[in-house]
Amino acid sequence: MEQGIALSPSGAHSQHDTRYVDEFSITELVNRQIAATAPQRLADIVTALTRHLHDFAREVRLSENELMAAIQFLTQVGQTCNDKRQEFILLSDVLGLSMLVTAQNNRKPQGCTESTVFGPFHVENSPEHAMGDDIANGAPGEPCFVRGVVRGLGGEPVANARIEVWQADEDGFYDVQYDGMDQARARATLRTGPDGAYRFRSILASSYPIPHDGPVGKLLAALGRHPWRPAHLHFLIKAEGYETLITHVFRNGDHYLDSDAVFGVRQSLIADWVRHPAGPGPDGRLLTAPFYTLDFDFALNPLPGDPCTART
Amino acid sequence: MEQGIALSPSGAHSQHDTRYVDEFSITELVNRQIAATAPQRLADIVTALTRHLHDFAREVRLSENELMAAIQFLTQVGQTCNDKRQEFILLSDVLGLSMLVTAQNNRKPQGCTESTVFGPFHVENSPEHAMGDDIANGAPGEPCFVRGVVRGLGGEPVANARIEVWQADEDGFYDVQYDGMDQARARATLRTGPDGAYRFRSILASSYPIPHDGPVGKLLAALGRHPWRPAHLHFLIKAEGYETLITHVFRNGDHYLDSDAVFGVRQSLIADWVRHPAGPGPDGRLLTAPFYTLDFDFALNPLPGDPCTART
Repeated sequence: MEQGIALSPSGAHSQHDTRYVDEFSITELVNRQIAATAPQRLADIVTALTRHLHDFAREVRLSENELMAAIQFLTQVGQTCNDKRQEFILLSDVLGLSMLVTAQNNRKPQGCTESTVFGPFHVENSPEHAMGDDIANGAPGEPCFVRGVVRGLGGEPVANARIEVWQADEDGFYDVQYDGMDQARARATLRTGPDGAYRFRSILASSYPIPHDGPVGKLLAALGRHPWRPAHLHFLIKAEGYETLITHVFRNGDHYLDSDAVFGVRQSLIADWVRHPAGPGPDGRLLTAPFYTLDFDFALNPLPGDPCTART
Repeated sequence: MEQGIALSPSGAHSQHDTRYVDEFSITELVNRQIAATAPQRLADIVTALTRHLHDFAREVRLSENELMAAIQFLTQVGQTCNDKRQEFILLSDVLGLSMLVTAQNNRKPQGCTESTVFGPFHVENSPEHAMGDDIANGAPGEPCFVRGVVRGLGGEPVANARIEVWQADEDGFYDVQYDGMDQARARATLRTGPDGAYRFRSILASSYPIPHDGPVGKLLAALGRHPWRPAHLHFLIKAEGYETLITHVFRNGDHYLDSDAVFGVRQSLIADWVRHPAGPGPDGRLLTAPFYTLDFDFALNPLPGDPCTART
């Protein structure tokens, strides 16, 4: 039976110190409630989260009305999510949290192609295409021929690497953003040849705004931030013996390269997309309108499991 | 037109430093995107939030899978909310954030009744009752007679103070938690008399678990924490010339006084709820079963607007 009497309100660990809580002591009280039997990693994460969340609330002296506004905002973010839209990923993206987590989990040796954010528009099992195919499948946009070589860090070509590529069309939309679109457009799975080379035809990627008609868009507007991402192609490259690479290739000269709404741009991922007048394309066929070419090579990080190739 | 070339990747403010982002530099990059025209308070809050959120993610070296798990958890929290349930308030409560914000916004001079968390079960416009009324209105539980005096910090009685009271029944539920219940039970609005006194009859409050069948309940279970709150009565007291007081009175001896799931207990708010055998009650009427009495006086903080009474 509790006695309900503590000898000293100031003793941080005295009996019943839970009953002398203030905005400072509460942090330790909360974290002490986690049981010793809780999974260690979960306990570590929640303990640190509580500490940093409390530090934040104390630093800005969050008011009761502000806490309620934050709760209503997060509720709206959750309720905007559905099977086609993930507003919490968007929130993580615009706060730079996604890019931070990408960066700290993908440190690579100098010379490797850098990673960037995955984004919400990847689709499993995109259609397989042969080398050189046109993957646009009707997506609107100027033709763009993309080619390059996938190598390992030591310069060795990586044969049979699995490349997934996806992108927005000239209106700034991915295929999955069109209601009722039941086929992949400007989205494909390819394999590198024995020399590590890949090539395909698609369309020119455009800069586009992230979905901004929900609570995250309202937050950006309130902060005076725009919702635009610079034009980019997404790549996901898997090959045996190498770390999987998730990255973009950005288009040099894009207006939003230095203010990407999700902070995904890295200098090493920016490439020149070269414009050509109408005429024969790289595949020898005649194009009746201007087209683009993009050359980009990738360097994969060898997995540390193989002591002969690992350099990390 | 962007040139895409920076002279030094190490210069934190060099041209195009946005393109040399890593898990450390990103924090400043994100916060620099907030426009000078954004409301100052919003900018301050989001800037601090970004800093603390990033510090958290770096400290625990949050993985990509863990970020995705966190996003899915928050999405579920948002989607559990409806017009009868606010799972994000619950999350704020169990992380101690609600109590922290209550504490830092309600510092009062020594001698004033302390505040505690508001909770999610308050209802506007509860039925008005006269002094001494039975407010239970059929809520199950042993009878409990509550009485006391509302005073100012200087000891002066506060006449005509508006008291709202609400509580759970012996099964641990508030009236609003019953499907289809269309009337208030164990919930009322009262006024103090000319001498500052109040009194009413209700039922004994019970300890109860916060709603724990949703994502917040799962989190508590994973952390080895129980969802129980010690028995308490809620009070909201408004009187002209005084700060509004939102608080509870807790029942001495309750098993959960030192492990309240939402960290709301304060020693000064714990009172003895005295059990009496069947016989005449405080109102003179005969009770055929045991009953309880609770005596609790409140001391309100004078508003600083009145220089004659303010002591803050």
